[in-house]
Amino acid sequence: MGIEEFVNKSEGEWRSMRSGHSLAFRQFEQVISSIKISSLSIDDKKVVDIINTHSNVPGEIIIPFSMEWEAESDWENENISSSSSGSTILIPFAISTKKGYIIRSEGYTEKMKVLSYYSFLSDGTLLLSTEYQHTVSEERIWFIAEHVRCRSSVTKDKKSLGILQTSFASEVRRVNNSNQN
Amino acid sequence: MGIEEFVNKSEGEWRSMRSGHSLAFRQFEQVISSIKISSLSIDDKKVVDIINTHSNVPGEIIIPFSMEWEAESDWENENISSSSSGSTILIPFAISTKKGYIIRSEGYTEKMKVLSYYSFLSDGTLLLSTEYQHTVSEERIWFIAEHVRCRSSVTKDKKSLGILQTSFASEVRRVNNSNQN
Repeated sequence: MGIEEFVNKSEGEWRSMRSGHSLAFRQFEQVISSIKISSLSIDDKKVVDIINTHSNVPGEIIIPFSMEWEAESDWENENISSSSSGSTILIPFAISTKKGYIIRSEGYTEKMKVLSYYSFLSDGTLLLSTEYQHTVSEERIWFIAEHVRCRSSVTKDKKSLGILQTSFASEVRRVNNSNQN
Repeated sequence: MGIEEFVNKSEGEWRSMRSGHSLAFRQFEQVISSIKISSLSIDDKKVVDIINTHSNVPGEIIIPFSMEWEAESDWENENISSSSSGSTILIPFAISTKKGYIIRSEGYTEKMKVLSYYSFLSDGTLLLSTEYQHTVSEERIWFIAEHVRCRSSVTKDKKSLGILQTSFASEVRRVNNSNQN
């Protein structure tokens, strides 16, 4: 599994069930949202704009894509910030078939342009490591069926590396027929 | 990472936050529970009894251990069966440093003696695959800090392989000082 195959497999509309665990407070949050993933042309103006501001990122540009999300229902705790809807453009820079960087036009945890490091485990699980201004996020995304992905994340405080939150999402692709597997 | 190191790292008392996702019904469940993991002697009578009824399992017996769990709070959906407390003995049979079988004296999903196949991903994530009477369960367990584990599971219908449920647990070890990382 390389990043191109992973993005190709991820294209489409997904319905996500996401649970968050605040470890220190033992609080749960849960959100149902829609996510749309679409590949973009490397000549797309928005893609070119982002690339131009990150000319120092090493690697070969591969399959830029966009993600749009919208929360359908949200029982989140007030002290956890997240957008109920939004979109981001992601541009992978491969430094080998199994690893590289991804530029994101807007981060999930903090709103800024962010650079993630990605790699793959032996079973094709995508690992994403991202430094934000105050936090570090480690995500893993893996397919459990053609139309079902799992995504887990860990958010750590950047200074203390204390774990602030974990989360887990089950994502089911919207398909025309009812077979989701 | 082999199974002996994994069990050694897992010994102790854990506080678990677990979220379940019923994909077809888009229902969440959440449970807080305590889990205690202890290694056992290979001469322990309960261990010997289990081994004697599974003389056909290949591999070398390594570090038997017990798991005890007790739900502290439980908002589970009624149609999902699970025990609020219980204990099980697990006996790994290594067929190489990275894979083997685990006999469990009582399964989580259905109460019977069960045989799991285990292996490790390149980053030390433990994969467990278990066939029950009507379902198949795929679990992965990984450490995100010395005292914090994540555990995800997927439960599939054995006939159709349709995904019935996913779940995710964040497990924090009870330690004497307050540093959990």
